[in-house]
Amino acid sequence: MNQSSFSRRTLLKTAGGILVTGGLAHASNLMPRDIDLQKNSKDLIFRSTEPRNGEPELAKLVQSWQTPTELFYVRSHAPNPTINPKEFRLKVEGLVRQPISLSLDELRRLPEKTTTATLTCAGNRRSEYNGPEYEDVPKVGGVQWEGGTIGNATWAGTLLANVLKQAEVTEGAKHVWFEGLDRIPKNGQTIGFGGSIPIEKAMHDAGNGAPLLTHTMNGAALTPDHGYPLRMVVPGYIGARSVKWLGKIVVSDRPSPNHYVATAYKIVKKTTPLDWSESGPIYRFPINAAICTPKPHTQLAAGEVELTGYALPSGRSGSSIKDVLISADEGRTWTRGEMTGKTQDFCWQLWKAKVKINPTTKTLVLRASDSAGGFMPARVPWNAKGYLRNSWYRLPIDAG
Amino acid sequence: MNQSSFSRRTLLKTAGGILVTGGLAHASNLMPRDIDLQKNSKDLIFRSTEPRNGEPELAKLVQSWQTPTELFYVRSHAPNPTINPKEFRLKVEGLVRQPISLSLDELRRLPEKTTTATLTCAGNRRSEYNGPEYEDVPKVGGVQWEGGTIGNATWAGTLLANVLKQAEVTEGAKHVWFEGLDRIPKNGQTIGFGGSIPIEKAMHDAGNGAPLLTHTMNGAALTPDHGYPLRMVVPGYIGARSVKWLGKIVVSDRPSPNHYVATAYKIVKKTTPLDWSESGPIYRFPINAAICTPKPHTQLAAGEVELTGYALPSGRSGSSIKDVLISADEGRTWTRGEMTGKTQDFCWQLWKAKVKINPTTKTLVLRASDSAGGFMPARVPWNAKGYLRNSWYRLPIDAG
Repeated sequence: MNQSSFSRRTLLKTAGGILVTGGLAHASNLMPRDIDLQKNSKDLIFRSTEPRNGEPELAKLVQSWQTPTELFYVRSHAPNPTINPKEFRLKVEGLVRQPISLSLDELRRLPEKTTTATLTCAGNRRSEYNGPEYEDVPKVGGVQWEGGTIGNATWAGTLLANVLKQAEVTEGAKHVWFEGLDRIPKNGQTIGFGGSIPIEKAMHDAGNGAPLLTHTMNGAALTPDHGYPLRMVVPGYIGARSVKWLGKIVVSDRPSPNHYVATAYKIVKKTTPLDWSESGPIYRFPINAAICTPKPHTQLAAGEVELTGYALPSGRSGSSIKDVLISADEGRTWTRGEMTGKTQDFCWQLWKAKVKINPTTKTLVLRASDSAGGFMPARVPWNAKGYLRNSWYRLPIDAG
Repeated sequence: MNQSSFSRRTLLKTAGGILVTGGLAHASNLMPRDIDLQKNSKDLIFRSTEPRNGEPELAKLVQSWQTPTELFYVRSHAPNPTINPKEFRLKVEGLVRQPISLSLDELRRLPEKTTTATLTCAGNRRSEYNGPEYEDVPKVGGVQWEGGTIGNATWAGTLLANVLKQAEVTEGAKHVWFEGLDRIPKNGQTIGFGGSIPIEKAMHDAGNGAPLLTHTMNGAALTPDHGYPLRMVVPGYIGARSVKWLGKIVVSDRPSPNHYVATAYKIVKKTTPLDWSESGPIYRFPINAAICTPKPHTQLAAGEVELTGYALPSGRSGSSIKDVLISADEGRTWTRGEMTGKTQDFCWQLWKAKVKINPTTKTLVLRASDSAGGFMPARVPWNAKGYLRNSWYRLPIDAG
């Protein structure tokens, strides 16, 4: 998968630069359909390669507030689709008076908006659900993510709200569906990955929370791993709503019936139709945080230890990290961390802290709170699909 | 409201007994439209009387596993409607091949099922959200319930599933709406209280979890406070889904748009259309528990104290209370309670415990866990409507 040469990589970056300024037709000629741009994800630890699911090493992840594309987690449900940018059309249909079909050229000519926002997988930290805390419950399947399925990138594209206004959404519209051009085998059928967001969120047209039809990530064209040529970016919502390889938008009076809205990405105790009906789709992500350095089971001398990590406030306008607290004594006393990144709506925060450990310290415990009343609970209930793990982050260490 | 005489009360009880055995036409003649049966709720502490919202004193509540009707909490959104039982019809419409209109007589002739199940208000313990734990957030409005909006009664009626089968539900059916005959002023309109449950729950036709079209409570006709002549009982779900004064059932492809499904009875941080769209209706109740004796701020001598209370497992078949634990030292050590009621699907459990306190003990703390993996968290996030308060129950005492 990683055969592409450095020259191709350079080419894409240049092309990406051109694309942003509107020269799509030209740029797309430079990108044959079979080009392999997946090198951009080469620094990830791939938990699976078919489909491609990778997360960065935590120590690398927190080296910068803005996450480089090659360190940005990749979550896919099928092989990256091969999309001919010249033939690509984004369709907008459903409860609209003016159905729309837009070429990439046309999309790029729309007013551009740039937003820095954090995406995070609902399954971030999933592997912890299979820890000793949950004895009497089935193992949680799916990709066994550690804490790396989170990243904070700069996205450029055009406002979803503007395209929807152009399509003239009709009165009964309550939800907006997104459909990917990937092809996922599911229950005997082949489906595209689907997302869905409430119309009120879709119509946000100001601030960092406005959903974006995104063609550019960190200043370059999206890579195939990140949804080339077009993806949604829905700040504040779980990554699953930021559908990659976006081909179709449907305006509807209800949430999408797609498997990834109606069935997956829900908090359920059992994977039964009753449990799925009882549980609404997850939209906003809750507060979360992790210790990223040192690594688990690092040998540490008693005394002062320096820690770094990230903390993500709940996905809500005006919500920022209030406190990052670390305990070396299982929660009896807490040391406050110091913010080292930027405070910006819908973005994570980075932090560092110095914590005293003694020879008997076995675990460092992290919790955070935000200005919207969000806090990381000591424990979270088990759920069958292992989503939204945001209990106190526990780092085992070998002190002595 | 309480003018009715003892003789009328006796009459109703007799009538109720007759009704259960099928003699409705006769019985309804005995009940003039203006009869006041609200005396059955006379033992409650009414938080409001227009509409009627009352909960029992906790010490009385846990005197028996089956809650007497007069100690069963009352939650209403409008005055009790006056319903002429002779004219009453339950209508079943929507996605059905055979719309139905049933008189009380006809309903009572259907196969009878009796279920003991606990109902609890989603707002149980709401007043605690206005405690010192939540400083920086708005006060939570609504009825300021303490821990008494819970009760465990025996309900008789007929299976909702059987009536729906008779109506021949069509394939696209996904939700079943309930509409009350009460008249609630809301946003310039007058609406009936509405509920909605997924079709998979509605079609349950076996076990304690099967929803019941209920005409009889604890062996007597429903009182007006509890929905006379007909109410839903949906075991395992928040009380709001057990719609009182039930007049209409609509089978649909989506949840009810009624205010009490689409807007109220949701966990939201803000009461905005965006927040409402992002949050699904609450169905199942989570685990909860309370200390019912002694009362708060009881003077207690240091030594062993006897406590009693209730514990409700999460509303799921096979879920029973595993542990009730009480701490007199803010969670450092815990004493196990002993079950004193029956263990039965969708029912609460009663418990007692002996706990040692010392002269400095200020608070007794209670938590519980159930066999479905449910547990009471130390803290729960604030929500704008004050629902699902199920954090550790804290009883302040005056030790010495």
